[in-house]
Amino acid sequence: MTSSFPKNAWYVACTPDELVGAKPLGRRICGEAMVFFRGPGGQVAALEDFCPHRGAPLSLGRVIDGRLRCGYHGLEMGCAGKALAMPGQHVERFPAIRAYPVVERHGFVWVWPGEAALAEPARIPALPWADSPDWAYGGGLYRIACDYRLMIDNLMDLTHETYVHADSIGQKEIDEAHPKTRVEGDEVITARFMNGIQAPPFWRMALRGMGLPEDQPVDRWQICRFTPPSQVLIEVGVALAGRGGHEAAPEHKAASIVVDFITPESEGSIWYFWGMARKFKPEDAALTESIRAGQARIFAEDLEMLERQQRNLAAWPGRKLMNLNIDAGGIHARRLLERLIAAERGTD
Amino acid sequence: MTSSFPKNAWYVACTPDELVGAKPLGRRICGEAMVFFRGPGGQVAALEDFCPHRGAPLSLGRVIDGRLRCGYHGLEMGCAGKALAMPGQHVERFPAIRAYPVVERHGFVWVWPGEAALAEPARIPALPWADSPDWAYGGGLYRIACDYRLMIDNLMDLTHETYVHADSIGQKEIDEAHPKTRVEGDEVITARFMNGIQAPPFWRMALRGMGLPEDQPVDRWQICRFTPPSQVLIEVGVALAGRGGHEAAPEHKAASIVVDFITPESEGSIWYFWGMARKFKPEDAALTESIRAGQARIFAEDLEMLERQQRNLAAWPGRKLMNLNIDAGGIHARRLLERLIAAERGTD
Amino acid sequence: MTSSFPKNAWYVACTPDELVGAKPLGRRICGEAMVFFRGPGGQVAALEDFCPHRGAPLSLGRVIDGRLRCGYHGLEMGCAGKALAMPGQHVERFPAIRAYPVVERHGFVWVWPGEAALAEPARIPALPWADSPDWAYGGGLYRIACDYRLMIDNLMDLTHETYVHADSIGQKEIDEAHPKTRVEGDEVITARFMNGIQAPPFWRMALRGMGLPEDQPVDRWQICRFTPPSQVLIEVGVALAGRGGHEAAPEHKAASIVVDFITPESEGSIWYFWGMARKFKPEDAALTESIRAGQARIFAEDLEMLERQQRNLAAWPGRKLMNLNIDAGGIHARRLLERLIAAERGTD
Repeated sequence: MTSSFPKNAWYVACTPDELVGAKPLGRRICGEAMVFFRGPGGQVAALEDFCPHRGAPLSLGRVIDGRLRCGYHGLEMGCAGKALAMPGQHVERFPAIRAYPVVERHGFVWVWPGEAALAEPARIPALPWADSPDWAYGGGLYRIACDYRLMIDNLMDLTHETYVHADSIGQKEIDEAHPKTRVEGDEVITARFMNGIQAPPFWRMALRGMGLPEDQPVDRWQICRFTPPSQVLIEVGVALAGRGGHEAAPEHKAASIVVDFITPESEGSIWYFWGMARKFKPEDAALTESIRAGQARIFAEDLEMLERQQRNLAAWPGRKLMNLNIDAGGIHARRLLERLIAAERGTD
Repeated sequence: MTSSFPKNAWYVACTPDELVGAKPLGRRICGEAMVFFRGPGGQVAALEDFCPHRGAPLSLGRVIDGRLRCGYHGLEMGCAGKALAMPGQHVERFPAIRAYPVVERHGFVWVWPGEAALAEPARIPALPWADSPDWAYGGGLYRIACDYRLMIDNLMDLTHETYVHADSIGQKEIDEAHPKTRVEGDEVITARFMNGIQAPPFWRMALRGMGLPEDQPVDRWQICRFTPPSQVLIEVGVALAGRGGHEAAPEHKAASIVVDFITPESEGSIWYFWGMARKFKPEDAALTESIRAGQARIFAEDLEMLERQQRNLAAWPGRKLMNLNIDAGGIHARRLLERLIAAERGTD
Repeated sequence: MTSSFPKNAWYVACTPDELVGAKPLGRRICGEAMVFFRGPGGQVAALEDFCPHRGAPLSLGRVIDGRLRCGYHGLEMGCAGKALAMPGQHVERFPAIRAYPVVERHGFVWVWPGEAALAEPARIPALPWADSPDWAYGGGLYRIACDYRLMIDNLMDLTHETYVHADSIGQKEIDEAHPKTRVEGDEVITARFMNGIQAPPFWRMALRGMGLPEDQPVDRWQICRFTPPSQVLIEVGVALAGRGGHEAAPEHKAASIVVDFITPESEGSIWYFWGMARKFKPEDAALTESIRAGQARIFAEDLEMLERQQRNLAAWPGRKLMNLNIDAGGIHARRLLERLIAAERGTD
C-alpha cells in the first residue's frame, strides 16, 4: 500500500521535555511504532518499538545508562538497534531492529521514517527564532483523528477563523479580504491583508501587552507558508493603522509566527505540534505562558471540526469537494506532496 | 447493498423541541447522515449533513435567519439544499446537496429518506390524539443498538412483559392468555384479553389516578397495531371486571395508547420514540409527567435485552429462530416489510 | 477456521462461588458463548448462551428450581439443553441447544468445549491440595487480551520476574541461574535453582510467616510444570541455605505451588485463573487472604505487558521471534499443543 505522506522527510516526533528520566517514549510516526530515548551521551535515539526477543514493546522498558532495557526479560538495546547485553545470553548474533535517523534541533526532535541513507540533517528546516535570544517560543501537542492534509488545508485557509474561532481571532473582515496564493519552489505562500479594521480579542490582548492602544484601527496580516512535508509557519500580526502594516516598525505592531508541525501518526490521525514564536518581550515568561494557554484553547476549537470532517469524508468517499480561491493554499500544498510521493515511489 | 427497511416511507426523525435555538440537529436516519433545522418561516428542513465546500458536517454550524451556516468556512445553505451565500464567493454554481422531504405534524418531525418524488404527506399517519384537547401525550427517545425489526417483534409480542417488566406491567396471566393475530390490509393487529385478574402495579397507579379502586378484579386488554414502516400503537387498559372491558364506559376504566415509532438509524441501530397518549385527565400535566417517567423506566428495561439479542443473532448468523403463535404479530409485520422492500427494489 | 487451542480438553470455566443465587453466568470459552448454572440437584450445567426461541442470551435469565428461564419470554431450559416448559406452549418439539460436558471438581468448574463424546472426567487433572486439609488455597481471576500461549510463555520463563516484578519476587540472581527444561510424556518441566542468595520481599514475608529468619542466605527454587491444554503449576520456595533446598525438611523452608489455569476466551483473550496452594499453616485464613492479595497485585503487573505484546505481534505479523534457552519451556509447550491440535484436526 502506498501512503498519503512522504516517508523520506523529517518530521517532528516529540519535544525534548518528553525525553527526560528513565521512561522512554513510545509514539507511532507515519504508521511506524517507534520508541525514543536518550543514549549514553544524551543524544536522542529512535528504534522500532519491538524487542527482537519476544516482541514486547520496548517503550514499556527503562533507560539505564543510555541503554534501553526491555521491561520483559532485560534485553538491552543500543541506539543503533543492536542488542548490547542480556543476562545469561550472548547477544552478538541477535538480530538488530530498525533504527531511525533522528536529530534534536531547534527545540524539537526530528525523525526520518523513510530510507535512512537519504536522511540529510541539513534538510531540517531552519527555525530562526529557536536559537536566538530575541525570540520567545511556547507551544503544545494535540493528537487529532484526521488525515494530515485536512490540517494543512485548515492552516492554509484562515477564513475558518471567522467561524471556528469567532471569540478570539476570528472577525468578519477575514473572509472579505481575498487571499493571494503563490508557489515559490517548494514553498506555498498564501497571504491576506486587512487594513483599517478593529482588532479581535486575541490581538487586543497582544496590543495591551505591547503597551499599544487596543481600540484604534489596525492593519492586520496573515502570511501562511507551507513547506513539505507538513510544516506551516504563519506570520500574523496587527500594526496601528497606516504605520506600514506588516512592514511597520516594531514599536507600532504586535506580531508573531504561528508554528505548526503536523506529523502523521497514521493515515487517519496526526500529532499536531502547535506553538507561537514572538520577537517582542522575549524574556517575559509569564507572557509566554499566557499566550500559550490562549493558543491552546483556540487551537482546541479545531479538533472536533477536523475529526468530524474526517469521518464525513470517509462516509462519502466518492464525493468531490470544491476548490475555491480560498482553498488555493491547500490545493498547491497537496500537489507538492503528490509530486514528492510519486518521486519516492519511483525510487523504490 | 439492499437495506432491511423501506426507504420510501415516512419516519419520525425528531420532536419539535429538538429544533429550537441556533443549533441544528445532526441525526442519521436509515443510514443517511442528515441535518435538521428551521427555515425562514420556521418550517423544518432536512439536508445531507455534508457541506459541499469541504465536507464538514453542517450540523456543527448555526442557524441564522433560517439559513444553515457551515461552522467551518461560513457557506450558507437554504432549505432546498442550495448554497445561498458565502463570504467572498459567488455561489450560483455551487453543487446542491440532497434535501429530504420533511413535514412537521402531530407533534413529530417526519422525514422521507427515499425517492423524493414519491413523498406524499398524505401518507403520514393520522394520530387522533395529537391535535385534540381531549388527549394528553408524553414521551421520550432512546437509541438502541438493534435491528429495528427486533423492536417490532418486541412490541407485537407482549408476553415479554411478564419477564422483562415483572415489577410494573408484567403479570403471569399475560402469557396464559393466547393472543389473536390478524392482518387487515397494511395493518397487523395482535390482541390479548385477560378478564377477572388483579391489576399489576402500573395499572393500580392508573386506577388510583382515575379515582377507581385498585384492589378489585379487572379486565385487561392489549391491542397492538403495526403499520409500516415501523409504527406500533398499542391500546392498553384495565376496566373494573364485568363492565365491558375494552368497551367499558370511560368512568369504569383506565386506558391509553402506547405509542411507538421505530426509526432505523442503521442496519443495526434505532431511534426509538416511545410515548403514551391518554384520554383521561388530559389537563393534568403532573400526571402526564409521572406517567412519562414511569414509562421511561419500564421501557429502559428492554434495552439490554434487545442489544444483547442483536449481538447474539450476529454471532450465530445461520441459526434459525422459532415462530410460535405469540410471534405471529412480528412475523406478519416482517412479511409486510419484505413486500414493501421488494416493491421498492422493483421500481429502482 | 482452525483454532490455536485444542477444543477436546478440559478447561477451567469458573469457580463455584460464581454460581450462587438465581443469576446464571455467561462466559465465552474457547470462542463459544456459554451459560453456566446449577441444575435441580445443584450439579453444574453449561449450555450455549442462545435461547432457541428468539436468540436472546440465556445468561440474562434466572435460575428457578434448577431450570434456566429465559429472561425474554420465559422459555425454561434443562441441563441437557432441552426446553422443559414455556407458558402457553408445547415444547416437546422445540429444538435443543448444545450442552457442554461440565464437571465441578477440585474447587473449579471444568468445561469441555469440543466433541462431547470424547469428554472423560478422568482426564481432569488431579490437584492434590484441593481436597486435603493439609493445604490451603487462595486465588483469583483476570481477563487479559492476549493469546493464551503468551501467558504460557510468561509462566514457563520466570526470568521476567526480575523486570516485571522487581519489587516483590524479582531478583538479579534469577536470570543468572540457567533453567533446565525437559519433556516427560505430556508434561514440560523447566526448573531453576538459586543457592545462597538473599530472599526477595515476597519470600521474606513468607519466612516471617513461618517464624524463620528473613535475613539469612536461602536456597530458592522454581519448578514450572506445564500440562496441556494450558495448566502451569509452579513449585516455588526458599529454604534456609544448606538445608537441602527444595528437599529440605518442612520446618526449614517456605514453599508453595503457584497455580495457573489459562482458559482461552477467544483467539486473542484469556480467562486467567491464578492462585497459590501452600502446605504450611493451612488453617490460617488471614494468611491465605494476605498471600492472595499480594499475588493479585504482583500478577496484575503482567497484564499491560502481555496485552501490549499481543498488539505488537499483531502489528508485526511476519516477524520471527527468538527462541533462547530461557524460552525452552514455552517452546516445548507450543509443540505439544500443535501436536494435539493436529491430532484433533485429523479426527474431524
